[in-house]
Amino acid sequence: MSETVVLRGKPVAEEMTEKDRQVAQQLREKGIIPTLAIVRVGEDPGDLAYERGASKRAEKTGIEVRHIQLEVSITQEELVEQIRQLNQDDAVHGVLMLRPLPRGIDEKYVCEQLAPAKDIDGITSGSMAGVFMDTDTGFPPCTAQACMDILDYYGVDLTGRKVTVMGRSLVIGKPVAMMAMRRNATVTVLHSRTTREDFAKAGRDADIVIAAMGRAKMVGADELGLDQVILDVGINSDEDGGLCGDVDFAAAEPAASMITPVPGGVGSVTTAVLMRHVLQAAEKSLE
Amino acid sequence: MSETVVLRGKPVAEEMTEKDRQVAQQLREKGIIPTLAIVRVGEDPGDLAYERGASKRAEKTGIEVRHIQLEVSITQEELVEQIRQLNQDDAVHGVLMLRPLPRGIDEKYVCEQLAPAKDIDGITSGSMAGVFMDTDTGFPPCTAQACMDILDYYGVDLTGRKVTVMGRSLVIGKPVAMMAMRRNATVTVLHSRTTREDFAKAGRDADIVIAAMGRAKMVGADELGLDQVILDVGINSDEDGGLCGDVDFAAAEPAASMITPVPGGVGSVTTAVLMRHVLQAAEKSLE
Repeated sequence: MSETVVLRGKPVAEEMTEKDRQVAQQLREKGIIPTLAIVRVGEDPGDLAYERGASKRAEKTGIEVRHIQLEVSITQEELVEQIRQLNQDDAVHGVLMLRPLPRGIDEKYVCEQLAPAKDIDGITSGSMAGVFMDTDTGFPPCTAQACMDILDYYGVDLTGRKVTVMGRSLVIGKPVAMMAMRRNATVTVLHSRTTREDFAKAGRDADIVIAAMGRAKMVGADELGLDQVILDVGINSDEDGGLCGDVDFAAAEPAASMITPVPGGVGSVTTAVLMRHVLQAAEKSLE
Repeated sequence: MSETVVLRGKPVAEEMTEKDRQVAQQLREKGIIPTLAIVRVGEDPGDLAYERGASKRAEKTGIEVRHIQLEVSITQEELVEQIRQLNQDDAVHGVLMLRPLPRGIDEKYVCEQLAPAKDIDGITSGSMAGVFMDTDTGFPPCTAQACMDILDYYGVDLTGRKVTVMGRSLVIGKPVAMMAMRRNATVTVLHSRTTREDFAKAGRDADIVIAAMGRAKMVGADELGLDQVILDVGINSDEDGGLCGDVDFAAAEPAASMITPVPGGVGSVTTAVLMRHVLQAAEKSLE
């Protein structure tokens, strides 16, 4: 058996940013300053960390960031008004809404107010319809797109291959299933109501496994086969307080052909995807 | 082996219409006359036949039909204007656009002008987003819903069962996959790029097969297992000029637990679904 390739996200992100820096430069030469607005309500440490990561990636890419920092006490009406202003602002190409929003705010309603053309993280029904119908409305969720970019970078073609998606969330499971299907994969979607036996069998039978259940190390040797490509989308805390994925890496790695680590895998690519979406939104705004 | 149940559509449609007649009556008592507008461009024999079937079903249900008959020479702008008028007309609750539209008209664009609230046959991106996201925006395509209604009528629960969908079209394959997943089935979607071996294996392994490839009798004994529930969505011409499904009924029937015939199966339920959607649209318009 040949050695397992660890699918690190960093080189994927670096290559994307390298290319995108040129795209950003070309836009600037046309008088467009590609701009991302990050809307943050409150001071959640997770939000702050993600905002820092996105800002760093934006700087590397040549994208301006406008930080919209709002008090936790903001009303839903005020937040919606803020989004409407961003929708109308031609200088803003993409809007990232950090979530979850505070309690008392109808998150679904608020997100839906964002114009799909600026919805660079796939949170609106317009973006979802685009993913489902394979049209260019909106953008897919960044994590789902990151899975595709990793497969592309490492030369994994999905045509005619069996992809098993573990999880059916709107953020990752369903959209990544659609995107794999668009790439001509034969897709099976597993979830919490799949029988244990079917789950293990569909995991073992797959050529490519995309684990996105959000449950620490729930996928191990029983649910995996030989020589598979394994993408682990989970980010969970393990028993020692460290980070781990949905896949038990130590158990899975020996038999796998390729596998993403956690951390350092899919999660390392999402901000690069976010920036690419901002540039695509800026380019579309030129048309 | 127990005898195969032939899943006829007629009793399903009859029961639906029986219930819906009462719903229509209740709406009328509240002063609402549930109304379906059928938009037909030209005189295509298939369109005329479908319009007759829908009109008959509407009459049985207690739904008014407004026939909008347009010349083939109509321009796209005129057609769009027609749709806008129907969107604004509070007396019309649902709009059925007979398709395909004549050449020279951008069908996708025209369909997209219909208000999702009146989109009783699931042709707009709003309806598609509703199916994908499991929200109550718009309506699923009638054929996909008909599959679910047949399963309900004959007491087939999908929870934890393996559903194999053959076909990935927007009209049936993708939406029916989403609807089966919502009912907690473990879903695999096969299509033209699935390898022949995987196709046969996933067909054999399924508890429930939904065939929607649009190819006459392409699913036979090799692609099917024992004691399965088989829904055949295909309507094709066979070698003798008669109608046949995507499943070779003679080959499939002996081993099946339940199977829909063609004609007289899924297709017999679609107009009843259409009427139910009109009533649901009328009820929502009351809110």
